[in-house]
Amino acid sequence: MRVAVVGLGLIGGSFALALKDKGIASSVVGVEANAANAEAALRLGLVEAVLPLNEAVEGAELVALAVPVDAIPQLAIKVLNRVTENQIVIDMGSTKEELCEIISQHPRRGRFVATHPMWGTEYSGPEAATVESFAGRAVVICQKEMSDSKAVERVEDIYRKLGMTVLEMNPEQHDLHTAYVSHISHITSFILSTTVLEKEREEEAIFNLAGGGFDSTVRLAKSSAETWIPIFMQNKYNVLDVLREYIHQLNLFRKALEKDDTETLKQIITKANEIKKVLHK
Amino acid sequence: MRVAVVGLGLIGGSFALALKDKGIASSVVGVEANAANAEAALRLGLVEAVLPLNEAVEGAELVALAVPVDAIPQLAIKVLNRVTENQIVIDMGSTKEELCEIISQHPRRGRFVATHPMWGTEYSGPEAATVESFAGRAVVICQKEMSDSKAVERVEDIYRKLGMTVLEMNPEQHDLHTAYVSHISHITSFILSTTVLEKEREEEAIFNLAGGGFDSTVRLAKSSAETWIPIFMQNKYNVLDVLREYIHQLNLFRKALEKDDTETLKQIITKANEIKKVLHK
Repeated sequence: MRVAVVGLGLIGGSFALALKDKGIASSVVGVEANAANAEAALRLGLVEAVLPLNEAVEGAELVALAVPVDAIPQLAIKVLNRVTENQIVIDMGSTKEELCEIISQHPRRGRFVATHPMWGTEYSGPEAATVESFAGRAVVICQKEMSDSKAVERVEDIYRKLGMTVLEMNPEQHDLHTAYVSHISHITSFILSTTVLEKEREEEAIFNLAGGGFDSTVRLAKSSAETWIPIFMQNKYNVLDVLREYIHQLNLFRKALEKDDTETLKQIITKANEIKKVLHK
Repeated sequence: MRVAVVGLGLIGGSFALALKDKGIASSVVGVEANAANAEAALRLGLVEAVLPLNEAVEGAELVALAVPVDAIPQLAIKVLNRVTENQIVIDMGSTKEELCEIISQHPRRGRFVATHPMWGTEYSGPEAATVESFAGRAVVICQKEMSDSKAVERVEDIYRKLGMTVLEMNPEQHDLHTAYVSHISHITSFILSTTVLEKEREEEAIFNLAGGGFDSTVRLAKSSAETWIPIFMQNKYNVLDVLREYIHQLNLFRKALEKDDTETLKQIITKANEIKKVLHK
C-alpha cells in the first residue's frame, strides 16, 4: 500500500521504516515542515520523497499523522477534508479526548482511526527513528464505533503485522490511563534531573557515580519539550490529578523519614514492591 | 586468596561469584544469619561453606561485609576485634559517615578499607546474585589515609580486576553524592509505584499499557525495604535535603501546568534535558 506520513520525527520515521521493513508499504512519502528534518529523513531513507500535504495525501491509501499532539486535531480536519472514501487516516498521538471531539462531526469521520501505539524512546527527530520499533507493545484504538469497520480492520491488521497487541478504549479511559503509566513518569524524570543538576554542582560526581539505577530513573528526562508540553497541556486535568497525588505521597514519605518512623517507611516500600505484579519483567 | 563474605544477598553473593570467576579467590566461605538464605547460597554455589562469624574470619585473608548498612558499623567492630595484622576487612555498604566514625578509634582501623562498589539491581537475596556484576562501574573508597597502604593497594587491585574504576572521596562527600545519584532515585520510584497503584485501580490497564518508559522509571520500586530503610535512615539529612528540593521543583512544575504557563514548563524541561551531558549513554 502507498503510505503518507505527516511528521518525520521519532514516531513517524520509525513507522515509515517498520512499514517498509515488514513489506506493508510499497512506497512511503512524508510531509515535514522543518527543512532540516525533511533533509535528514530523505538522507536516512525514511521516506522516498517529502511532499506538500496536498500531494502526499492525494496519492496515499493510508495517511498517518505523527506530529505533536497540539497540532493533530486541526491537521486531522484538513486531511479529512481532502480524503475520499477509499483512503484511511490515522493519528499516532499520546492524547485522544481533544482529537476525538474535534473530528467527531466531520462528514468523513469514518475514514479516521484514532490510534496510540505505546512505543517511544527518550530521543526525538528523524535521526532517532529505528526500524526496531513498536513490536511487542500495545496499541490503543479509540472510538472504533466511529470509524468504518473496514478501515479499523485494515489498521488493526497493519499494527498486528508490526507485532503489536491491539486494545480498545474510549478517549477518556485512554487519557486517564496514559497519565498514570506514561505522562507522570516523564514528569518525575524531568524533575529528578533538574533537582540533581540544581543540587549537585559537581557534574563529574554524577557522571562518575551514576549507575544503572539513576540512569534508568532519569532516562526520560532527555525527552523533548516540543513533544511533551502539548501532551501535558492536552491531558492537563488527569496529569494534575496524578501529580498532586504523587506530591502528597512524597510528603508522607518525607514526614515519616523526618520522624524516624521506619514502620510507615516499611509500609510504603512494601506497598511499592507490589508493582512487581503488574510489570512485564 | 581465601575470602569470607558476611551477608550472602545480592551484593555479597555477586562479589563471591565474581571473585571466583576472575580467579581472585581460591576459596570463598560465607556468614549468613538467615537459614533459608544460607541454604540457598550453598545450593547456588555462591560459597563453599556457611560458617559462624568467628570461624569464617579466622581463616580469611579478606573479610567482606555485605549486610544492610545499619548492621555494618557494629559488625565492623566485631570483625576488627578478631583480625590480625595480616588480614583485610572491607565493607560494601551504601553509606559511609556513620561507619567511618564508629571504627575511627579502633586499634586495627588500618586493616579496614571502607568501600562502596556502585553496582546493584532492584532484586535482593542470594537468588539475585550474578557473576556479571560490578564490571564497568565505579567503586568509591573512603578515608584511604586511615587504612594501611598495603591493604588499600590490595583492595584496589581486587576491584580493578573486577573491572571497576576506583574513586576516592571522604565519607561526607560520598554520602552527599550518593543521596543525589542513588538514594533519591529509589524514593521517586517507590512513590511513583504507590501513586500509580493507589490511583489506577485497573491493574490490567497498567500491565497492558506500560511501555519502556514506565517500566524503567518504576523499576527501582521493586527494591527491598530491608536494604533501603537503613540507607535512608543513615543518610537522613542528605536524603531529606534532596527530597525537599525535589518536592519544591515538582510544585513549580505543577503550578506552571495549572496556569498554562508553557514558557516555564519549557524552561524546566530544557534544563532537565541537560542531564544528557552527564549520563553515560
